[in-house]
Amino acid sequence: MKHLNIDVTKALRFINGSYEESNKGKITSAIRNLYASKGKGSNFMGWVNLPSSIGKMELLEIEETAKLLRSTIDVLVVIGIGGSYLGAKAVNSALSNNFSDFKQSGVKIVYAGHNISEDYLSDLISFLKDKSFGLCVISKSGTTTETALAFRLLKVLLEKKEGKEGARKKIIVITGKNKGTLRNLAERERYKVFTIAENIGGRYSILTPVGLLPIAIAGFDIRKLVEGASYMQKLVKESSYDNNPAAQYANIRNILLNNGYNIEILANFEPKLHYVSEWWKQLFGESEGKEGKGIFPASVCFTTDLHSMGQYIQEGRRELFETVISVSKPLNELYIPSSLDNFDDLNYLAGKRVCEVNKMAELGTQIAHVEGGVPNIRIELPELNECYLGELLYFFEIACGISGNILEVNPFNQPGVENYKVNMFALLDKPGFERKREEIIGGL
Amino acid sequence: MKHLNIDVTKALRFINGSYEESNKGKITSAIRNLYASKGKGSNFMGWVNLPSSIGKMELLEIEETAKLLRSTIDVLVVIGIGGSYLGAKAVNSALSNNFSDFKQSGVKIVYAGHNISEDYLSDLISFLKDKSFGLCVISKSGTTTETALAFRLLKVLLEKKEGKEGARKKIIVITGKNKGTLRNLAERERYKVFTIAENIGGRYSILTPVGLLPIAIAGFDIRKLVEGASYMQKLVKESSYDNNPAAQYANIRNILLNNGYNIEILANFEPKLHYVSEWWKQLFGESEGKEGKGIFPASVCFTTDLHSMGQYIQEGRRELFETVISVSKPLNELYIPSSLDNFDDLNYLAGKRVCEVNKMAELGTQIAHVEGGVPNIRIELPELNECYLGELLYFFEIACGISGNILEVNPFNQPGVENYKVNMFALLDKPGFERKREEIIGGL
Repeated sequence: MKHLNIDVTKALRFINGSYEESNKGKITSAIRNLYASKGKGSNFMGWVNLPSSIGKMELLEIEETAKLLRSTIDVLVVIGIGGSYLGAKAVNSALSNNFSDFKQSGVKIVYAGHNISEDYLSDLISFLKDKSFGLCVISKSGTTTETALAFRLLKVLLEKKEGKEGARKKIIVITGKNKGTLRNLAERERYKVFTIAENIGGRYSILTPVGLLPIAIAGFDIRKLVEGASYMQKLVKESSYDNNPAAQYANIRNILLNNGYNIEILANFEPKLHYVSEWWKQLFGESEGKEGKGIFPASVCFTTDLHSMGQYIQEGRRELFETVISVSKPLNELYIPSSLDNFDDLNYLAGKRVCEVNKMAELGTQIAHVEGGVPNIRIELPELNECYLGELLYFFEIACGISGNILEVNPFNQPGVENYKVNMFALLDKPGFERKREEIIGGL
Repeated sequence: MKHLNIDVTKALRFINGSYEESNKGKITSAIRNLYASKGKGSNFMGWVNLPSSIGKMELLEIEETAKLLRSTIDVLVVIGIGGSYLGAKAVNSALSNNFSDFKQSGVKIVYAGHNISEDYLSDLISFLKDKSFGLCVISKSGTTTETALAFRLLKVLLEKKEGKEGARKKIIVITGKNKGTLRNLAERERYKVFTIAENIGGRYSILTPVGLLPIAIAGFDIRKLVEGASYMQKLVKESSYDNNPAAQYANIRNILLNNGYNIEILANFEPKLHYVSEWWKQLFGESEGKEGKGIFPASVCFTTDLHSMGQYIQEGRRELFETVISVSKPLNELYIPSSLDNFDDLNYLAGKRVCEVNKMAELGTQIAHVEGGVPNIRIELPELNECYLGELLYFFEIACGISGNILEVNPFNQPGVENYKVNMFALLDKPGFERKREEIIGGL
């Protein structure tokens, strides 16, 4: 049976081997703490044992809700920001046809509540006018401005279209357990509600209804996703360092950071993985970027960006390392045809599959970048399916927990996200922010 | 008359004012050199005076070719990589409806030849099967593997569909002047050909047919784009430092780099600008990332990424600065409705336009990030239209030329892009790379 595999040998050559050894004790105790919900941020470790503990009834409820909604809509609008949309978006993009947005068949998933763009929201409203659409609004507190604003606008649209009764059947709320604006509304309006456990933060919520429901509505197999994550949960919990991909990844990246490699670039060779990178950037950036610490997370899509960021990676400032997600086997089979007149000099590739060329581009890139002074970590997935994505996402989550522990930060809070909000509320005359407003106006 | 505007005051407070003064002489001579095609990389400065010198006949030919093709196709596949697609993609995305991919009407523009993904190409071929499509293949040499491979596959598909004669009318080639594989093919097959001047590199080619033809086929006004660029050309050429946005931008970012700010994040508050950031990353990354030098270019889309990268930007390692593209006025008008029961506590926003909230998010973010130790440069565009985009793109190009000059690199070459290609060719048994192959195999 194949599984996610990690190769750190092309990073190890850049660092002193004794470093790797010296962290092992710390890592073992970090893993033990995580699985026992101990240590910094222990009240937000609900996701650690989630794969193995998620209820069969909860999965069934998600699947049945998804099935029912799918049968009545053409478009689902997922309304959420940050961890409330990136997990679903990552999985749905990775599993969808590359041209699914352009196709006329199937339930379309679009996203809102993740920006405050007047043009985006106007274009969305105009797009939805002649569609049968549903809303899945996701916010733990219910007070996130971006999300609440989009929901207010789209609820009006849906109710105008379907009436209050009709709209009710097409609105699903995913929110925190405790009384909050969204929970209160849902109860009053009798919307279908799913609950986000209090001890799971947004960027670790992919295996809660936050991720699972929009993935199920898109038509993908959430049980396989959970199964893959469960495999990784068991592996990381029970394996020694040498067989533990998350321990190795967490360790190596921190040693690299200590050696002046401040930027990590997550690279892929499949464009469908773009949003996995976006999800990963939130996971690591938000978990580690505090107290003046943390590796700066960036991402590229190859070979596309070998023709844009490639020059910098090859020859720019030497303070970056690369982590590559490599997919062994594509879903399709496409052979390169021969050409009678060989007009493009490509006949040397004729008869090969396209993926063979992609694989050699990948290997050629690894060799070139390592030679250029870029440490390389390689994460290999057998295929792009629900199961391996489950392994991958949990792998990153638990590695991030371990990594934050090595870095000695709390990887489960995000105090800095409040700063812009407070200023925005004050500038918008929100009641309760009068003093902040005076302070800001005085400083402008 | 409104134009692009720059505000560097929120960056200046992080640096010693005398630095700004001390570079002015260097910048004046850099600008003089660029407009006289002198200095490092002078044989690739054809783009500098392009806005004012582009021929009316050439514009007309592009427009008429576009018009003719638009009338016969549903989908245009732009086949190119790096500078051969990013300019067109940036402008087309910035000017299109946010949901245009999902809509059934209008000529769709899709992209290929910018990756070697078997799934991407298979999905594309399957998507195109029942469409009337055309091909615009863009490659200066004609030998770029990604592009040549996609063209070989799609040419077969088109000829099978339309016959050789029919296909001929739907293929446009944009390539270098000198004999190369693509030029030879185009002459033999009598395809419509546009020529890329030898003295213009890919990332500076937006105002050549490389950018202009796909933009015209998408239905946008290329004369306005050129007009905006011409305005900026004249402004930068003739203005003293204090009235010269490109001089100021180039100067400040280099002073920041010298003060330990190694990462520049280009931020926007309009999702449609995502690909302008991708274009910008190539422009600066490929121009400056060499000889172990250069600012690392990254990008974010706000407020979206305030809920992912926001935490890092606010509180992570203090070695980044932010450049924000701000658009003053949206295309649409959307007011926030009042709610009788104020279920979401948003009534304090009722009656405001969405863009007022977005603007206060922007200002609130600037204040928060500057307080958090992130220097801020702000570039303001009056609106998102062809004209201001022309100003913006030329502004970045010329600022990049000046900036590379301050950094003392040749901003017009990209030697490091070859490294992965050579390895890939060797690994794929390409004739002529036998020795490299032995070397690589020996080292594996």
